[in-house]
Amino acid sequence: MPKQYFSLRNLKFTLHEVHESQEITQYPYFSHIDREAIDMILDSAIQIADNILAPVAIEMDREHMAHFHDGKVTVHPAVKKYIKAVGDAGLIASRAPLEVGGSQLPETLNVAIAFVMGAANNAITAYAGLSEGASNLILSFGSQYLKDTYLQKMYAGDWQGTMCLTEPQAGSSLHYITSSALPTDEAGKYKIKGQKIYITAGDHDQTDNVVHLYLARIDGAPAGTKGISLFVVPQKRVENGQFVPNDVKTIGIFHKMGQKGCPAVHIEAGNNDECYGWLLGEANKGLTYMFQMMNEARIGVGTTGACIASAAYYAALEYANERPQGQLLNVKGQDPNAPQTLIINHPDVKRMLMLQKAITEGSLSLIMQGAKYADLLHVSEGEDKEKYQLLLDFLTPVIKTYPTEAGIQSVSSSLQVFGGGGFCEDFPLEKLYRDIRITTIYEGTTGIQSLALLGRNITMKNGKAAMLFFQEVMKDIEASKTHEDLKKYANTLASKLAEVQRVTQHLVGFAMKGETERFLADATLYMEMFGIITIAWQWLKQATVAKNALLTQNPQGDDLQFYESKVHSMRFYFAYELPKTLGLAVRLLDDELLTIGVENTILV
Amino acid sequence: MPKQYFSLRNLKFTLHEVHESQEITQYPYFSHIDREAIDMILDSAIQIADNILAPVAIEMDREHMAHFHDGKVTVHPAVKKYIKAVGDAGLIASRAPLEVGGSQLPETLNVAIAFVMGAANNAITAYAGLSEGASNLILSFGSQYLKDTYLQKMYAGDWQGTMCLTEPQAGSSLHYITSSALPTDEAGKYKIKGQKIYITAGDHDQTDNVVHLYLARIDGAPAGTKGISLFVVPQKRVENGQFVPNDVKTIGIFHKMGQKGCPAVHIEAGNNDECYGWLLGEANKGLTYMFQMMNEARIGVGTTGACIASAAYYAALEYANERPQGQLLNVKGQDPNAPQTLIINHPDVKRMLMLQKAITEGSLSLIMQGAKYADLLHVSEGEDKEKYQLLLDFLTPVIKTYPTEAGIQSVSSSLQVFGGGGFCEDFPLEKLYRDIRITTIYEGTTGIQSLALLGRNITMKNGKAAMLFFQEVMKDIEASKTHEDLKKYANTLASKLAEVQRVTQHLVGFAMKGETERFLADATLYMEMFGIITIAWQWLKQATVAKNALLTQNPQGDDLQFYESKVHSMRFYFAYELPKTLGLAVRLLDDELLTIGVENTILV
Repeated sequence: MPKQYFSLRNLKFTLHEVHESQEITQYPYFSHIDREAIDMILDSAIQIADNILAPVAIEMDREHMAHFHDGKVTVHPAVKKYIKAVGDAGLIASRAPLEVGGSQLPETLNVAIAFVMGAANNAITAYAGLSEGASNLILSFGSQYLKDTYLQKMYAGDWQGTMCLTEPQAGSSLHYITSSALPTDEAGKYKIKGQKIYITAGDHDQTDNVVHLYLARIDGAPAGTKGISLFVVPQKRVENGQFVPNDVKTIGIFHKMGQKGCPAVHIEAGNNDECYGWLLGEANKGLTYMFQMMNEARIGVGTTGACIASAAYYAALEYANERPQGQLLNVKGQDPNAPQTLIINHPDVKRMLMLQKAITEGSLSLIMQGAKYADLLHVSEGEDKEKYQLLLDFLTPVIKTYPTEAGIQSVSSSLQVFGGGGFCEDFPLEKLYRDIRITTIYEGTTGIQSLALLGRNITMKNGKAAMLFFQEVMKDIEASKTHEDLKKYANTLASKLAEVQRVTQHLVGFAMKGETERFLADATLYMEMFGIITIAWQWLKQATVAKNALLTQNPQGDDLQFYESKVHSMRFYFAYELPKTLGLAVRLLDDELLTIGVENTILV
Repeated sequence: MPKQYFSLRNLKFTLHEVHESQEITQYPYFSHIDREAIDMILDSAIQIADNILAPVAIEMDREHMAHFHDGKVTVHPAVKKYIKAVGDAGLIASRAPLEVGGSQLPETLNVAIAFVMGAANNAITAYAGLSEGASNLILSFGSQYLKDTYLQKMYAGDWQGTMCLTEPQAGSSLHYITSSALPTDEAGKYKIKGQKIYITAGDHDQTDNVVHLYLARIDGAPAGTKGISLFVVPQKRVENGQFVPNDVKTIGIFHKMGQKGCPAVHIEAGNNDECYGWLLGEANKGLTYMFQMMNEARIGVGTTGACIASAAYYAALEYANERPQGQLLNVKGQDPNAPQTLIINHPDVKRMLMLQKAITEGSLSLIMQGAKYADLLHVSEGEDKEKYQLLLDFLTPVIKTYPTEAGIQSVSSSLQVFGGGGFCEDFPLEKLYRDIRITTIYEGTTGIQSLALLGRNITMKNGKAAMLFFQEVMKDIEASKTHEDLKKYANTLASKLAEVQRVTQHLVGFAMKGETERFLADATLYMEMFGIITIAWQWLKQATVAKNALLTQNPQGDDLQFYESKVHSMRFYFAYELPKTLGLAVRLLDDELLTIGVENTILV
């Protein structure tokens, strides 16, 4: 197994130097932690990752994958060890306030922890991640009874939380959910009936209970999204202090290509008319509540993309530094007896590795940027609060999409470095390649994210969110110009911003004419263009910080190499990746209609 | 399972209409077949594909994957049925001349057959494909003894053929092969010793013998590639009319991510000093012989890429035509009770499907173009023969690379159409996604192909091959201009040709200055650019043929739709794919050095 799956130096650079954690911890809400505390919490997360997660990552994919037999779902026993460890470390309650026993950690730190753990073992992190998300919903909207019944058990890792959205006929379009809820005599208690699919961690043998956060329609509710309510539906309910089965049955498990260590199950609720759910918050507001979790969940998936790419990159880097093959092109043919060179010395291999590094570290920086907006939003008031909310909402689809779409390319490139070995179980690459493929699908596909970016966010509040975003980028462009040799890149990025604004105006023109379908037909390409430019922003920002350090800190040894590598990676990204916007802009500005107004029979 | 995995209409269009099979069959060498015979042979291949291959494709990936236990490799029993069926149909001897009992089929037809069978079950086709390749080497270079001993058995599907190139320390760089051959008292008979890895179909229980074509060094041979010889090394040798074990032992099987129905094994020859091999042709010419098969093998891998993409495309198209989800954007929000639309009606889904179609059919047409050059080469003399040899050699790396690299993207896009289902075993997509990933690795990685294109083929014979290629494209550009509404596309392609020529000149400039490493540093990007333009050529060519048909044949119904779809797909390719060359050209013309002349520590 590879020795390394992430770079702590880079993680701390991103967290402290680029995104300045101290800006967050100076606020009273986060005053219980400082940079030193952040590093300590991170270190304890790394201990869990190194000692519990990484050693079982491969086993959980092969001999101990999640398994459904005789009505029972069994998973690797390390899951209990893991979920108890993160529970004990206060990481399931990471976002909960101190007053309810939470850790009240900034989102930036949560992202860093998720990145480390996911890089070690991306299939296991969903268990705690879902408990965290589900408990947060109960904390935000639940009655005192629900909070008292569920929160401490979930925080401790004794009970598993889940999110039950998708039904066989309702995936991307939750509008069509048909699970039903019938009121009972007891206020807030309903009889639940329906099926849910793709329920991650929806049933397993490593916690004592599973608590589903379940979307359903109360009898007589309006059609569409405005009639969906959110319920707490435990697998076992407590009645008179006793555990009672709650008629939630697992009827199947999905045989997934990757992330096999964590089950995705098909559940049936209320088949015997004995399933009860407790309404969370108000009726018919379920989707609104769920979407309050969505930013967090989508940033989580972006993080999964980036951390899998990180694990793949470090595996490839290690292999490239150890594997001899061939001779350098400038000596080839000169001496047939010359020894082979390490493959890292081949320019094409170096290019692939630099691509992986540029995608991985660029993605992490973008994710951290989003997390920082979430933190600033949390501690701000008034206009500032609105600003950070808009920036976070605006960027979330990009944070979900770039690290996953580019992450798939990055992992594929890591696999390629291994040659035939990359296709075989001898190395972890084939697993990581399978694992990451889901990330552009779950929590809203790339197509859905792209509609959100172009169809909603760009025009949100009359374009205010977009304006704020462009101001953020311009601010960093200006900051970079204090370095003479970054000016060239600053100007390139400014021209790319102008390019994407031109494209945006062109497309929004269709929206203004009411041609919604045409406006959004190529939203996915728009997303690709937007994502590439957004990452260029993050690279310029990182390079500026590195340049500052090189100028002011007189770094030596590893530190010197690190900062120089940052500047080099920025140059690589601008040279190899950023030019891709050119072709995208050509298509997006071209008015030839090819996917709308054509008969389906054009596809034969 | 999907109902369709390829389009016979499109295959016949590509074979007969675009690449004009009658041009080939008019030559005496191929005069035993005509268009009708081609269609009949194709039909019998389709029968085998439909009845033997497709039904077991999924089983061979799961419950009956290739398996190594107690020293024995077992595979799905359908393998015997399949290899006997193709043997009986004369398809293992497809390229062998009639006089030795071969079928003497044109390469264009062989490609069509391989495409159909691979689309049905891409893991099984390697069995016969390797027997075909190995038997061809014996036919071309073997002594009468070797021909008499092996050919009929291999043609019949009784014995399996393989290619043994890679060793643990020698993969992309065969230069470093260390398997040894010691002369015995008998002329042409050697004692073989060594290990080979990734030997596809290298051992299994569905044929009576395995015949390895094995690269090794004769004792005292020169170092490097000039000291490698080719041997026939059977698993069981015939001695006094008896089968005797030949000390070739399988010591392991590779656990592959995909193509699990066909084993890749690790073999050890001569561990007990009892392994004999028979020299094929002359000593020290092994690599030259092997490379005579390489064009064929590389076109074969390109075909594998294209046919997997085809199977994925038709699965996705079927699903998109059946799966309701969401509402059209231009009606959304109007009626919450409106029924869901089929996902094919969403522009983004249609775009994905059109991308898959453009890649799949564009790839097939390019592969067929290469096969046609191979056929014309076979039947030509003198200058023409040289011309077609150069065109075939020139295009082969592109034929290997575009259909595999773009094929991976295409299959990923097909998977995306299925949403969460694409990631699960309920649909064949996750399997096809795994299967296709090897194609950019085996038979020379994309990096190796790219070096061949730019480093060898572009400058081959003082640029004659490149010049011939550009003439071929220009000829088709001119032909397309007879249609007023194709002129725009013809001009675009001409300008793209000029663009790639500009890039080529720029890069060759470094070669002229002796800066080989710099010349080739971004060869992979050059390949990408070159491939995109080459496929645009094939699309313009197809559109021209379709336009001719629309003008002159007054097609109706399905035929009308088919030809219109062709023109539409060309437009799609030119609008969505061709602009990608812009960004690539920017990088390739940019002289900033980022992957050479930098310390490896830049990667941290």
